[in-house]
Amino acid sequence: AFKGKHNERSAVFADLSADEYLQVRDYMSNQKDLDISVNALTKPSGNFLFLIDLLLPRKSDALGYLDNNKPKPVREATAVVFYGTLGHIKEYVVGPLPNPTYHRDVTVERYKEELPINARTVTIGEYALIFKFINEEVFTKLGKIVKESFDVSKEKTLNSFEGMPRGVKSGERQTWISFFRDLSGMYIHPVGLEVLINHESTNASLWSVKRLLYNGQYFDSVEDLIKQYDAGTVTKIMYKPVQNYASLKPKSKPTGLSPQQFYPQGKRFSVKNNNVMYLEWSFAFGLSSLTGMRVFDIRFKGERIAYELSVQEAMSVYGSITPGMILTKFLDSSIGIGRFAHELVRGVDCPYAATYIDTFRYIDVSAPHRFRNSICLFEHNTGRPLRRHFSDFFSNSYGGMVNSALVFRTITAIGNYDYLWDFIFYQSGSVETKVHATGYISSSFNVDGNLKYGHQVAENTIGNIHTHFISFKVDLDVLGVENVFQTKDMKFMNVSLPWMPERYAMVPQLVEAQLKTEKEAALRYDTKTPRYLHIASNRTNRWGHQRSYRLQVVSFTGDSLPETEPEEKSMSWARYKVAITKHKDSEQTSSSLYSQNNMWTPAVDFSKYIEDDESIENQDLVAWVTTGFLHIPHAEDIPNTVTVGNGGGVILRPHNYFDEDPSIHSPDGVYISPG
Amino acid sequence: AFKGKHNERSAVFADLSADEYLQVRDYMSNQKDLDISVNALTKPSGNFLFLIDLLLPRKSDALGYLDNNKPKPVREATAVVFYGTLGHIKEYVVGPLPNPTYHRDVTVERYKEELPINARTVTIGEYALIFKFINEEVFTKLGKIVKESFDVSKEKTLNSFEGMPRGVKSGERQTWISFFRDLSGMYIHPVGLEVLINHESTNASLWSVKRLLYNGQYFDSVEDLIKQYDAGTVTKIMYKPVQNYASLKPKSKPTGLSPQQFYPQGKRFSVKNNNVMYLEWSFAFGLSSLTGMRVFDIRFKGERIAYELSVQEAMSVYGSITPGMILTKFLDSSIGIGRFAHELVRGVDCPYAATYIDTFRYIDVSAPHRFRNSICLFEHNTGRPLRRHFSDFFSNSYGGMVNSALVFRTITAIGNYDYLWDFIFYQSGSVETKVHATGYISSSFNVDGNLKYGHQVAENTIGNIHTHFISFKVDLDVLGVENVFQTKDMKFMNVSLPWMPERYAMVPQLVEAQLKTEKEAALRYDTKTPRYLHIASNRTNRWGHQRSYRLQVVSFTGDSLPETEPEEKSMSWARYKVAITKHKDSEQTSSSLYSQNNMWTPAVDFSKYIEDDESIENQDLVAWVTTGFLHIPHAEDIPNTVTVGNGGGVILRPHNYFDEDPSIHSPDGVYISPG
Ligand SMILES: [Ca+2]
Ligand SMILES: [Ca+2]
Ligand SMILES: [Ca+2]
Ligand SMILES: [Ca+2]
Ligand SMILES: [Cu+2]
Ligand SMILES: [Cu+2]
Repeated sequence: AFKGKHNERSAVFADLSADEYLQVRDYMSNQKDLDISVNALTKPSGNFLFLIDLLLPRKSDALGYLDNNKPKPVREATAVVFYGTLGHIKEYVVGPLPNPTYHRDVTVERYKEELPINARTVTIGEYALIFKFINEEVFTKLGKIVKESFDVSKEKTLNSFEGMPRGVKSGERQTWISFFRDLSGMYIHPVGLEVLINHESTNASLWSVKRLLYNGQYFDSVEDLIKQYDAGTVTKIMYKPVQNYASLKPKSKPTGLSPQQFYPQGKRFSVKNNNVMYLEWSFAFGLSSLTGMRVFDIRFKGERIAYELSVQEAMSVYGSITPGMILTKFLDSSIGIGRFAHELVRGVDCPYAATYIDTFRYIDVSAPHRFRNSICLFEHNTGRPLRRHFSDFFSNSYGGMVNSALVFRTITAIGNYDYLWDFIFYQSGSVETKVHATGYISSSFNVDGNLKYGHQVAENTIGNIHTHFISFKVDLDVLGVENVFQTKDMKFMNVSLPWMPERYAMVPQLVEAQLKTEKEAALRYDTKTPRYLHIASNRTNRWGHQRSYRLQVVSFTGDSLPETEPEEKSMSWARYKVAITKHKDSEQTSSSLYSQNNMWTPAVDFSKYIEDDESIENQDLVAWVTTGFLHIPHAEDIPNTVTVGNGGGVILRPHNYFDEDPSIHSPDGVYISPG
Repeated sequence: AFKGKHNERSAVFADLSADEYLQVRDYMSNQKDLDISVNALTKPSGNFLFLIDLLLPRKSDALGYLDNNKPKPVREATAVVFYGTLGHIKEYVVGPLPNPTYHRDVTVERYKEELPINARTVTIGEYALIFKFINEEVFTKLGKIVKESFDVSKEKTLNSFEGMPRGVKSGERQTWISFFRDLSGMYIHPVGLEVLINHESTNASLWSVKRLLYNGQYFDSVEDLIKQYDAGTVTKIMYKPVQNYASLKPKSKPTGLSPQQFYPQGKRFSVKNNNVMYLEWSFAFGLSSLTGMRVFDIRFKGERIAYELSVQEAMSVYGSITPGMILTKFLDSSIGIGRFAHELVRGVDCPYAATYIDTFRYIDVSAPHRFRNSICLFEHNTGRPLRRHFSDFFSNSYGGMVNSALVFRTITAIGNYDYLWDFIFYQSGSVETKVHATGYISSSFNVDGNLKYGHQVAENTIGNIHTHFISFKVDLDVLGVENVFQTKDMKFMNVSLPWMPERYAMVPQLVEAQLKTEKEAALRYDTKTPRYLHIASNRTNRWGHQRSYRLQVVSFTGDSLPETEPEEKSMSWARYKVAITKHKDSEQTSSSLYSQNNMWTPAVDFSKYIEDDESIENQDLVAWVTTGFLHIPHAEDIPNTVTVGNGGGVILRPHNYFDEDPSIHSPDGVYISPG
């Protein structure tokens, strides 16, 4: 059924192939002077090639290639090396692909300073040592206590979950680890033991246990706990088996399939490499190991509407009385959002008939990994008209069309939480980006005072209050890159009635403004914001109005962390509902790989993009959108949070961009006239 | 596929049957002393039986019958009579059905005062006279002008669209009528002629033309316009034919069907009379001619969650420089929302495979009308998981289920606009009510100064700025009628870290409050509102928390009409995002049939429900929810507004109501474990 020719030039946005990852890995590994290991079990004391990812081309180069027959930008990768031997992290540009011949240290160019080693993500190699350390220094030593309390033995262990950040100031790497029953859905099985480990040194032999929390009581050392436990000054937790309330095993037998969607006349979209075509739409896509899903060069009827639309960050701030979560502020892109885009389950994660796409990644591994069916793509009949009108006044007729749209999805399971990331392409020229949260909540053991921080949701288990803040990058290019940022709203004005001028009435008027600088256009959460936000061209449509796309943000967030907190700099994008900046290749992301473990001196502080307060008039503009919701967990979050009501997003809608609704040209239109 | 036994007692909420309408009509018609006509063309000077609608039983009677084997409440109707001969409106209770033997004037009991005749809706009978009046007093007299300007002739007329309210104070009935080309989608074809008609008298021979607007210029009379036109002091509009840009005829040929949904193993829901069953859900339904869709006795797993969930009002406030829309404030329930629930088009308005239900109404007619297929009901696979988790840390497994939900829908085309009204029943125990707007915008002729009130969207056509405010009634009964209203939110508190008490951090805490009175619980638009709103029982779930349902409002409204405006009283529900009142049978609706044409002394002023500031602790509570959006029309509203982004609603979500997510018991659950 599908007709049309794919744009081969989308390749500039394509993720690295398995072979390209290998080439970069081997090239880096061969630089003997760098002394880099590519073994995923490399210890923190060694030098480890942590990440290889596509380096996006400079925007001007990409546009030159896409639009002006300029040469194809050189294909390059970013390689991230954790230098345990040297105490720092380096980022390299490696190229040209597919056969690299050069590498260049770009760390200071990108971040203005060196990256300290403790800003790094905890690797598999470090985790292996942490688990070994805990086993030897905590569980083995606490043998009798953990047996009596948790039935821990050689054969039966507990699982761990970490609080973040790892300390209270730069350079620290002290992690509160909470323990959970070794059951599926462990995240809601806290047992009441939390341990503070100092793993600041890259030399694991210098690590130490700094503090313990057992059943709400603090201990300075393992020995202290043992002593007091034996002396009878500790309220003991006595082990008893529990039924696994976290299990996702259905409790009822299937009774028959729910409704299913099918394509009676074939698919109306097509994927070739990383280019997608669907009715009037086309776009390129990629999946960053760090930030996750992204689409580029989004065109409707051949005209580019956005250069980039991408996930940037998923942040959560928790409250708890227990140390394992009292300070916890997760910044998922530091662990890797796209990294956890696993195989999608047909019929549940996406419809049976969807198209599934494999992705390849290289992060914290020894060799590139293939993730089968980790992106899905389907046309979805929303079961609702996109538009319709029935008339029986004066004329009798009906016209309408069903809202059938293309959905492009990944789902990332980052530890306990699963986020659904959808980009939806509508026949009316709108694109929507939507996020939904599901999976397991984080929880803590119910100790005195913890009900201030959440509700009890299972035996001894508190579901801790937290926020979900999501950052999206929206680089609309409305008829080229030179755009302005406009707001529109309604204001009641007292006006004299023209046919009885002595009489006044409050009448809604349209109020429009063009914001001039980045600071003006950084729309803070705690301020009243105009209801309509537009990225506009100075070119006008047939009716003389500036052609624009409107950003309609759907969000249930609220206050973010106060700016007085030193960690806040690492999530300063969350201050704004929407912030508009002048595009810079050097301001690619609102967050960074190094934000989580160095929140106090983050490699990227988004608010700095705005600090120079540049003009945003007739510039290439980027909108940074914050969405999300406050989550007060409740019993119905057990076993999993449901997606209904737990999401947010932004709709990009044409507003005087066209001369009429483009869906009038859709082949799905229906018209009925009587007789 | 469907199993289960329908609840016959839902009949207490059932709309009147065609026969019941006839019985009431004939009974009223037979009361010779009342002298009522049942002819739809009855003139305003006559006495006309305008409306027959179900009288809902008193809630205590209905609950006695539903829950306690009390006798079935007597079935009664409300009959509304416009007494042109007497200058007032009467409401009667007529019963018992199906064979009425009594009627009782309840006007003053319901509204505390008599209803003046000019509070009435304009009937078909009055419209016939208005059209005749306009034809004779305007078009015939303006013969040459309307021919030259608009090509109006005996064979070719213009269509009219009215501004509301009809004047500026109680008792007035002066309507600005704007004229539009006689094309399908006339609403966006203004020609530049507006006429003010005084039709205050029920005696049409006393009606007059008060003012005219032609091409932006005002005239005191038809004669004045003719004189000045002939004298050359008028800027003429010269007729030229236009192509019908309002046409909904598809501009492209169909290329094949879009994706379709089907039930591979049969329907999992069933309708019998006005009772619906779907998996764990059951409810009764009805369609009020005035307020539209409503459901009652909503139960999940046999337990009642809500007594009533209903549409109350759809309000729009417009801005314009032209008199036809400068004062316009539409209150659709005064015309009748349910009245315009017409046949739904298979495959567009609802899926092909949906179940379609007929409704019967008696409003502004001579005999009851049947509306074929005017409600649809279908299970919809949303194409998204309701919940899922993929795990590859510590344990390897996948559990999830697709979000398949029951949608119950009507679509009402009230003049230019079409509203989609959905009630959606999810397997997680949530119910969502959603409204979307589509259809034609209202527009005005482009005269000087009108761009302050909207954008140009077609030749000479301004799409006028306006609001869409929707009022829903949500009568949750959480484990019985005695409930409390709780709010929950998050607050950052400066707390000392237990393991290093000298160090402080801002940590989110849960803040809960129980609001005590109606005034406290009237949450105004311009105030910061707690993010979680709950109707709760004092009974607790397994974990000791009050069982509750949360109201999550999705809204894009903003400022409503200032309270200083005399018309605001008729829409005072729009002051509040959510307002909680103590349930009273006498406070059935937030608006009234008489609000539109007597905005200044409305029969129902919602804010009065709150004025007595009653206790809302351990009372039967009703939540009144406002949702909607600001609409700044743009070129893409031509020909029709699209539903994407143009809606709002409220999700009712269990929050500690259950002990766990009930969807874990769904037959749709999927679990995969490796090997
Ligand atoms: Ca800047
Ligand atoms: Ca841009
Ligand atoms: Ca009251
Ligand atoms: Ca109630
Ligand atoms: Cu959450
Ligand atoms: Cu509108």
